[in-house]
Amino acid sequence: MMTSANYELTISRLLNAPRSAVWQAWSDPKQLAKWWCPRPWTTEVRGFDLRPGGVFYTLMRGPDGDTSDNPGVFLEILPQERIVFTSSLLEGWRPATPWLAMTAIVTMEDEAKSTRYTARVLHKDEEDQRKHEEMGFHEGWGICIEQLGELALELALDTQVLRR
Amino acid sequence: MMTSANYELTISRLLNAPRSAVWQAWSDPKQLAKWWCPRPWTTEVRGFDLRPGGVFYTLMRGPDGDTSDNPGVFLEILPQERIVFTSSLLEGWRPATPWLAMTAIVTMEDEAKSTRYTARVLHKDEEDQRKHEEMGFHEGWGICIEQLGELALELALDTQVLRR
Repeated sequence: MMTSANYELTISRLLNAPRSAVWQAWSDPKQLAKWWCPRPWTTEVRGFDLRPGGVFYTLMRGPDGDTSDNPGVFLEILPQERIVFTSSLLEGWRPATPWLAMTAIVTMEDEAKSTRYTARVLHKDEEDQRKHEEMGFHEGWGICIEQLGELALELALDTQVLRR
Repeated sequence: MMTSANYELTISRLLNAPRSAVWQAWSDPKQLAKWWCPRPWTTEVRGFDLRPGGVFYTLMRGPDGDTSDNPGVFLEILPQERIVFTSSLLEGWRPATPWLAMTAIVTMEDEAKSTRYTARVLHKDEEDQRKHEEMGFHEGWGICIEQLGELALELALDTQVLRR
């Protein structure tokens, strides 16, 4: 593993869907719940207020009853371009005591007729960066981003059908 | 001490200066250094980038060589209205390991011909809230805000003199 000044893990995928559809799948909590964690885990969106200081709270449930509780807050929103959120703060920016402190900077860019989707995840130290990587960061986030791409493509096709 | 859902400490003062001058004393790091900590302590502004995700880093020095090191980041900026910053994140929103996790929400409002200046400071739990209060939150922040008011009044009078 490479370390960096930001104790950063990065993942990037080219998604076969237009940016507007990727945005739709991210910005609507009903859609987000469909791709946010690797199936067969499911996501309950407990809070979703897409503005700086607004709550972003997901609870994930595994097939064997395991759960992952992830309260957090949105920090910056640029529609169809960038979403920043962190587990280090809660709704209204109150300091949190997260089980894993991280900030994610998600970007969406046009690339050919597809969308380049990149998530940079920043940690407070090398230990947390390593812990997150060993938990399966690349595989886990990779599966979710692929699920996002599939859903975004469906949404884009639905829109095309409706427009015909 | 009252506790609240936000583990919040609040301080408010009516400053005898226009909001534009209070903003000038806050938004210019050269001016901020003059009032940021109770004299005879001094402030070195090590980083000041007034935008969401921009560094806000002060180092304070006491007359006996004591120091207080306070890296952090700005979260929201509404000119002449609101400044939000936290010690829970660093420049670029990277998670931090602060000695005291807090988020401050500073607001400035017109009140008669003066400025109502309010700082709400949020903590992660009651223990941190109490620790901050016992460190002398109300006295310390109170002195600084009064220093801010005096400087803002000077800046406002200087501007008036220049305009004559």
